Amino acid sequence: MATFQTIRGFRDFYPDDCALRNYLFDTWRDLAMRYGFAEYEASPLEPTDLYRRKSGDEVVEQLFQFQTRGGEDVSLRPEVTPSVARMIGAKMRDFPRPVKWFEIGQCFRYEKPQKGRGREFYQWNVDILGEESPGADAEVIALAIDCMKAFGLGPDDFSVRISDRRIWDGFAVEKGIGAEEFEGFLRIIDKWEKLPEEKLAAMLKPSGVSYREVVDFMADPSLLDAVLEPVSASLAARGLGGFLKQDPTIVRGLAYYTGVVFEIFDLRGDLRAIAGGGRYDSLVKLIDGKSEMPAVGFAMGDMVIGLLIEQAAASAAQLKDALPAQADAYVVVGDEPQRPDALRLVQELREAGVRTDMPLSAVKFGKQFGMAEARGARVAVIVGRDFPVVKVRNLAARDDLEVDVTDVLDAVVTALC
Amino acid sequence: MATFQTIRGFRDFYPDDCALRNYLFDTWRDLAMRYGFAEYEASPLEPTDLYRRKSGDEVVEQLFQFQTRGGEDVSLRPEVTPSVARMIGAKMRDFPRPVKWFEIGQCFRYEKPQKGRGREFYQWNVDILGEESPGADAEVIALAIDCMKAFGLGPDDFSVRISDRRIWDGFAVEKGIGAEEFEGFLRIIDKWEKLPEEKLAAMLKPSGVSYREVVDFMADPSLLDAVLEPVSASLAARGLGGFLKQDPTIVRGLAYYTGVVFEIFDLRGDLRAIAGGGRYDSLVKLIDGKSEMPAVGFAMGDMVIGLLIEQAAASAAQLKDALPAQADAYVVVGDEPQRPDALRLVQELREAGVRTDMPLSAVKFGKQFGMAEARGARVAVIVGRDFPVVKVRNLAARDDLEVDVTDVLDAVVTALC
Repeated sequence: MATFQTIRGFRDFYPDDCALRNYLFDTWRDLAMRYGFAEYEASPLEPTDLYRRKSGDEVVEQLFQFQTRGGEDVSLRPEVTPSVARMIGAKMRDFPRPVKWFEIGQCFRYEKPQKGRGREFYQWNVDILGEESPGADAEVIALAIDCMKAFGLGPDDFSVRISDRRIWDGFAVEKGIGAEEFEGFLRIIDKWEKLPEEKLAAMLKPSGVSYREVVDFMADPSLLDAVLEPVSASLAARGLGGFLKQDPTIVRGLAYYTGVVFEIFDLRGDLRAIAGGGRYDSLVKLIDGKSEMPAVGFAMGDMVIGLLIEQAAASAAQLKDALPAQADAYVVVGDEPQRPDALRLVQELREAGVRTDMPLSAVKFGKQFGMAEARGARVAVIVGRDFPVVKVRNLAARDDLEVDVTDVLDAVVTALC
Repeated sequence: MATFQTIRGFRDFYPDDCALRNYLFDTWRDLAMRYGFAEYEASPLEPTDLYRRKSGDEVVEQLFQFQTRGGEDVSLRPEVTPSVARMIGAKMRDFPRPVKWFEIGQCFRYEKPQKGRGREFYQWNVDILGEESPGADAEVIALAIDCMKAFGLGPDDFSVRISDRRIWDGFAVEKGIGAEEFEGFLRIIDKWEKLPEEKLAAMLKPSGVSYREVVDFMADPSLLDAVLEPVSASLAARGLGGFLKQDPTIVRGLAYYTGVVFEIFDLRGDLRAIAGGGRYDSLVKLIDGKSEMPAVGFAMGDMVIGLLIEQAAASAAQLKDALPAQADAYVVVGDEPQRPDALRLVQELREAGVRTDMPLSAVKFGKQFGMAEARGARVAVIVGRDFPVVKVRNLAARDDLEVDVTDVLDAVVTALC
């Protein structure tokens, strides 16, 4: 009989991995809430047309798509932004603007699994809807930066590469690149740092623009300086200006961006994107069919940042603190007839909020201390023949205290503090 | 252009719904950790054969099943227990026994959506593996009961109906019901309270057992008394014995149960199952192909308990507390040239952990207080022409305090306490 494997590109989170995942989630959630964002969660399964309409071809080719028993054409979400646009479009008037929302949810893309990339991953999605001012762009970028800092990463570890797609709108008009060619043109710019000159020049040929013209255009910082000034000023006022790096090659792969776009890059490794986002002022109307709703947001996946956190020596202690012991107190049944007394005590400790474990069947006295250690317990409470007098043992200090059963909770709490 | 709908039977959690969901999750997680359980998370997509092998026909007929682009036959999980069995089977020796694990995860079943039942739902799964003693059965049942109590529900609201499938093993031997008929026979018992006598009698006919024989067998409590005595004693010692109600008609729908089975029932409404579980000593070996691993566990879905919590007037206050304000403090930009000062202050408050919001573009002075109210803020910090002197306003008490900007954090924290 064959045993079952985890599906390729998918993960099982065993307890240690799950604790690291929860540390990530807790940090994301805490930071977003400090910034006044409210949490939501969209359906993980969506009509496939939601992605056909606006995510771009690359995303659609990677969908986990199928028909339900009822004949619906559905896909596991590859990203959350179209769902946010759908949700806000459906209840436009229920939420005072600006709408500040975040979600932590699983996404699915049929890609080639590799280090830092799976077919399933979690994403932290942060969006501000109903605010067209650059102050909103700065707000989401500031949150992304503060999150990196919360993970112990600083200016030597990452930078925020930022641009604005509208500079390319102007370039396209100037050079006569038509609307139907524009998405393809942006895809060339997106690959600017990854491909050699001759390749890029060949790709540009159909648009009638030369490699040199693009290089010259990008060499002049004044256009980006002007368009990004309010965002830069807002981040500088917050003390976060030092992380910004203007970079006209940043255009982002997704089709729906309309203005400011940015990516957070790892400076120590292979310049991977840790997070990315931008302004998507037309998406809600495209999905909803009626309502204008300017929007800006970003997403951070769990896999690349997870690797960076594990690599960052500085946060090793922080990481370890994030992994809670499975139990803080362990009640040792010294004498099996005392099991009901031990059970009552366990119940009392748990009701008081102490993470408490005990043997579930008769186990030799000495072996129970090994079980206590395996759980990470710092205190053992030994219930035996002297009951109602019990021993509270500080397992690190190897310190014994004999107390009446009515004083056990106090003694345990003291030992744990 | 058509607008998009949420897929039938699926949910979007808007912020208020998400806050209630998080309250559920936090309670589940907190309780499980008090009991010394460690959190894990299995892949949400599994090989379809994992369910074909042992979940039972009803579950298989409701799968969201499809082929991936790579040709894998996969299903969104309809339940988590087979995944736990797969995970523990793969790393049998890595975890000291008993293994105490819990998961909070989404499951998917193509059922007819109705009140308290969707095609997508969250489940809290709690399992003890590697412990055959009834102490483990009692441990998971105690946790389920304590969870109900944590939601403010008591003995008038729910009971734990408990039985043991092995009494039916004995009955089958005595009455000559063959192994191949046994699962079908249990399915009749499962429907005992829902169907009329003549229907049950007709269904029993092929097995050669009469309605009366089953009734007589169930009328004698001595068999269940004996087999459930250790579980009952353990729960009584914990002060939780009063919730138990022996009920031989409880057999649970899933095919893999081998011993104690139980369901938590709503006593106020239509006797719906809120949670259910039992012992499944053979499942790990069936899935893993080699290892013996006794196991017991239960699952509680989020939908029925969510309805009960909303209905329980007693916990309305508790519920409201569970919905955090979107921001506690709101920084009002009294004078637009002071925006950089306001941004710096917002950054300081957020760094100190205060949930803080502010207008992202120029907004009229009076309107900003409406925005503060919409966010649920209790404190406004007004930054204007007198900077570095700012006003800290307690919005409930309508109390103003003028402080130097260096003292704002203290003043805000004081006002929030």
